[in-house]
Amino acid sequence: MKILITGGGGFLGQRVARELLAHGVKTGAGGASVPVSAITLFDIAEPPAGVALKDPRVTFVTGEVSDKAAVAAALGRDTGGVFHFAAVVSGQAEADFDIGMRVNLDGIRNVLEACRAAGNQPRLLFSSSIAVFGVPLPDVVNDGTTPTPQASYGVQKLIGEWLVADFTRKGYIDGRAVRIPTVSVRPGKANAAASSFASAVIREPLNGIDYACPVSEKTLMWMCSPRRVVGNLIRAFELPSETWGPIRSVNLPGITVSVTEMVASLKKLGGEKAAARVSIQVDPRIDAIVQTWAARLETPRADKMGFVADANMDEIVAQYIADEGIKL
Amino acid sequence: MKILITGGGGFLGQRVARELLAHGVKTGAGGASVPVSAITLFDIAEPPAGVALKDPRVTFVTGEVSDKAAVAAALGRDTGGVFHFAAVVSGQAEADFDIGMRVNLDGIRNVLEACRAAGNQPRLLFSSSIAVFGVPLPDVVNDGTTPTPQASYGVQKLIGEWLVADFTRKGYIDGRAVRIPTVSVRPGKANAAASSFASAVIREPLNGIDYACPVSEKTLMWMCSPRRVVGNLIRAFELPSETWGPIRSVNLPGITVSVTEMVASLKKLGGEKAAARVSIQVDPRIDAIVQTWAARLETPRADKMGFVADANMDEIVAQYIADEGIKL
Repeated sequence: MKILITGGGGFLGQRVARELLAHGVKTGAGGASVPVSAITLFDIAEPPAGVALKDPRVTFVTGEVSDKAAVAAALGRDTGGVFHFAAVVSGQAEADFDIGMRVNLDGIRNVLEACRAAGNQPRLLFSSSIAVFGVPLPDVVNDGTTPTPQASYGVQKLIGEWLVADFTRKGYIDGRAVRIPTVSVRPGKANAAASSFASAVIREPLNGIDYACPVSEKTLMWMCSPRRVVGNLIRAFELPSETWGPIRSVNLPGITVSVTEMVASLKKLGGEKAAARVSIQVDPRIDAIVQTWAARLETPRADKMGFVADANMDEIVAQYIADEGIKL
Repeated sequence: MKILITGGGGFLGQRVARELLAHGVKTGAGGASVPVSAITLFDIAEPPAGVALKDPRVTFVTGEVSDKAAVAAALGRDTGGVFHFAAVVSGQAEADFDIGMRVNLDGIRNVLEACRAAGNQPRLLFSSSIAVFGVPLPDVVNDGTTPTPQASYGVQKLIGEWLVADFTRKGYIDGRAVRIPTVSVRPGKANAAASSFASAVIREPLNGIDYACPVSEKTLMWMCSPRRVVGNLIRAFELPSETWGPIRSVNLPGITVSVTEMVASLKKLGGEKAAARVSIQVDPRIDAIVQTWAARLETPRADKMGFVADANMDEIVAQYIADEGIKL
């Protein structure tokens, strides 16, 4: 199978590509593994040479998802699967409305129209977000909770979900969307995502850097580790279309963690000194977005579909230390 | 106040314009009436001379809502209120996917961007539809039911609602959206709406024309008369922004009526001969769309906001006979 990954230069795009190259995709008869013959990574810029995925089956294409012709060219005619990760993050979509609309809304529409034009009903995985939930937020969000986003990022993701659902219903694609929890611990630098702190609060101290957390210690987040989310994204792609039925979106499982608990795990696994590097300095702009997000969910549909969560925050911190080879 | 009505040549556009010219809009301090100084009716074609609204304050502008520049020109710089009715109906949006996306999705986006560019935060009323509800459909849809549209028309309307909500939250407009029931009895000819039968089954027999109803007698519809819907549309426009809060959409009240009950009211008010003109001839394409629609709703939020429903089907039929001067 030939695969296109938009946002292919990013964290999730690179990790998913690596997994697909190593293990193929279980989309054959009875869930049999099918080899991945080629992957096109589409992104606005190539990752640095030291970081970028190297494999003879991988081609990197530079372009904007808001550029319809560039997306169509990157997809080509015989692509069987698409992972759509390209997006501007929540903080940026809120600060620059036009960029958010262009990348997050025109972007998914361009990808969907390219798939439709290709005519081979590609399978498509759209990464949505729990940011689709807003007000009034119940104590526990469940599979029946109505998405009512209160930030442009969540609105754009929700619109993307419904476009995916309708293109699927029309038979243009075989689409599915997953609402991913906040992924932590992401390596690298902080970005404009309002959720960026949930990685930085662990990552920066473990790398000897002081960190001012922009939300209060009581703030709760719905979280998932990189390994778990990559596994769940690939599972979402692999599940048969019938398993999804007419509802093409699902809330992915995660764990509810407070900032206090994040710092406690940091202390337990990274030491007193690392934990002491964290201070709280509330940024009202970030805090306002984060406080509208769902932090406690029940995910029976996802659980039944075989998606899995991390056991606890300690496991998430330990995974980062192991994966990044942090010296303590 | 200067007002723009898209779809201004259509049934709802013409009726709303007539009301606004006669009574002004109650958007002043404490709900005081403000005179309507000018109305621009924007539509793809002027209504026939005999039907078109004549008033020195009315200007008709011909154009497509999918044409961004035409929409911006029609809005101008000092328009205080917009009623967005321009749309292709459910049957057409399903039969021609591209037209639906262009008119129903690009259309509302063009109107919203024009309002934003105008910079005066116009008040905007978006006519959505109960077609936003799909599967799994509860026995009774209420204010907490999650929209899960299963036809392109409903998807496009739902996307429009969320764009209206986000442009409102950002302060670009003061938007509100109403999910209108099936409006019956519409005068004139049948159109490509899958709900067209709900008017035709009364209208055609009363005008001496045989009618083959494309859905079964047991089919239930959520209905509202023209007078009630026009009153509710204007009320939705007039209500203060605070009354809406962060949720900018509402399910409008209506009554649940079966095809059997429609024909019974026709018989009671129009006579045996009229009722005998109705036959049932199920059209699977129409039936498939209609059966996914919500037909029983509870609308406590709308009721509290002062929206009103008709008393019963007899009242709806009697209204048509009176308004159109039908000779029995």
